[in-house]
Amino acid sequence: MTHTVEVTRGGVVESRHIVHVAVAHADRGLIASCGDAQHVSFVRSAIKMFQALPLAEDGVIAGLSLTSEEVALCTASHNAEPFHVAAARSILTKAGATEDALACGPHPPMYAAAAEALEHSGVKPGRIHNNCSGKHAGMLALARHHGWRIGSYHHIDHPVQQRVLATVCSWSGIERSAVGLAVDGCGLPTFALPLDRAALACARLAAAALRDAPAATIVRAMTAHPEFIAGTGRLCTELMRTAGGRIFAKVGAEGYYCAGVPEQGLGIALKVEDGARRASEPALLAVLHELSVLSTSDLERLRVFARPVVTNTREETVGDVRARLTLASP
Amino acid sequence: MTHTVEVTRGGVVESRHIVHVAVAHADRGLIASCGDAQHVSFVRSAIKMFQALPLAEDGVIAGLSLTSEEVALCTASHNAEPFHVAAARSILTKAGATEDALACGPHPPMYAAAAEALEHSGVKPGRIHNNCSGKHAGMLALARHHGWRIGSYHHIDHPVQQRVLATVCSWSGIERSAVGLAVDGCGLPTFALPLDRAALACARLAAAALRDAPAATIVRAMTAHPEFIAGTGRLCTELMRTAGGRIFAKVGAEGYYCAGVPEQGLGIALKVEDGARRASEPALLAVLHELSVLSTSDLERLRVFARPVVTNTREETVGDVRARLTLASP
Repeated sequence: MTHTVEVTRGGVVESRHIVHVAVAHADRGLIASCGDAQHVSFVRSAIKMFQALPLAEDGVIAGLSLTSEEVALCTASHNAEPFHVAAARSILTKAGATEDALACGPHPPMYAAAAEALEHSGVKPGRIHNNCSGKHAGMLALARHHGWRIGSYHHIDHPVQQRVLATVCSWSGIERSAVGLAVDGCGLPTFALPLDRAALACARLAAAALRDAPAATIVRAMTAHPEFIAGTGRLCTELMRTAGGRIFAKVGAEGYYCAGVPEQGLGIALKVEDGARRASEPALLAVLHELSVLSTSDLERLRVFARPVVTNTREETVGDVRARLTLASP
Repeated sequence: MTHTVEVTRGGVVESRHIVHVAVAHADRGLIASCGDAQHVSFVRSAIKMFQALPLAEDGVIAGLSLTSEEVALCTASHNAEPFHVAAARSILTKAGATEDALACGPHPPMYAAAAEALEHSGVKPGRIHNNCSGKHAGMLALARHHGWRIGSYHHIDHPVQQRVLATVCSWSGIERSAVGLAVDGCGLPTFALPLDRAALACARLAAAALRDAPAATIVRAMTAHPEFIAGTGRLCTELMRTAGGRIFAKVGAEGYYCAGVPEQGLGIALKVEDGARRASEPALLAVLHELSVLSTSDLERLRVFARPVVTNTREETVGDVRARLTLASP
């Protein structure tokens, strides 16, 4: 199979992940794939740019004077480093909401050093430290802006979620009735779509970022402030830094990744069938390399994500993780 | 496919794991399987009973007066709860060795409450807290007993590891030259075998436990002291408690599981192709149920492992994990 990521130990393949990839062009639709380009799964946090897009389209960013960093945080699965938490609090203040209004549950900061610092300070992890707190704060801002009720903003029947669902359907070109619904890790609705539809949505957003003001606002916030999208030691951040504005990228739970390349009008969506992040990261970089969006030297700079080593408790290197992907035309 | 474990969200399959299973009878060899019964992978900690068997066969247990609990710990991937750590220290004392002699690297106790207690006490995790410290202490005891050098006991060319490799080859009926070698998480050699060979070794050990004193010593230590094999909240422990001596079971890293059923002379080896433990546990229980080794009420008692729920940061149940396995005769 040419759509796997292999985990080796001592040169022997120990475990193997199956990856499905769809690459779409904004006008031409699906242009390349490996595995099942119509594989249906939940997009999770990988489409947060579409959950944030109404902020730009509906005038919330201008209306509440959200900074570009704050807009970036609305698309983030952040580490809860101090600057992330400060930005989330700032959005809440501008929205006239409190941390109690956030519907996401608490979890320790994703960044270990931030989690340790919080613990040493004696403060329990709160909703503000949830990696999705920026997205939630943005949704509270959207509700305020429209005069919608704040309570239950995370329910699928709330106007905020209906606005988001309409956005996802519009950009991916899928009927609402064809979208699978479930509850995400943070309590919001998440959507099951075929991969090629998610890739098309990203391709259209990428192309729109060159001409359409709301799309440009979201994409530029992501590429201008990559540290706000994820944080220290995270692929989304390091990839967007390395790409210098050429790529936007967003990870999702359960092995999902979305990316877009504005200059080429390309969108990419990939899903590791078993949900492993250790496979989605090398897979995304292999796809971007095969598309010539990342050079070999870019890949070398991102080697810790492109071909991570497996270590043991003795801190010995005992294996590595390797993408084995070959894209084909549909 | 009838050899998968599905992870659902809102009733939709979000992720899917492929599982390979081999079931062997001590005399008749492979009797049932799903997926690829000859799938080759590293057995990791799932064959610790064979790494401990020389202690019984060579008279180390009698010679050093190891207790049955201490023998159990030599086959364990333990939680580093206080009783595990005390038993590991006792083995070391009987072997005339110190914690510094352990070749395994340090890691925090696997059991969260034990890790927290250690951190609050201001003690850094040591080698003794490594989940493999009992196995390593047992190997030091084996080296002492034979008068072999203590240093480098974890290297493949040391007599301890040659003794272990010979044991694994003998019980699984495989030539040494056919065994793939690599370094395990704790620094010891680990072995790549076809699944049906690992299952056969377990079947033979299961059958031998009814008649052969060394095999009985190891298997009875495991089934009599299941809390020493893993610990609080762990499947190996809860499964052996539920089975009341009918089953021995041992988890390994990267989605491996081995088990044996002495009364039936059966051995089971399974590997989740992508290495996910969340799939290996429901898969093992499904196989034991299909073999009628576990009853439906046993499975119900083990439901938290057999069909675990997926929760989110709001502590809502948003999905579950389900084994979809059907065994077939070879």
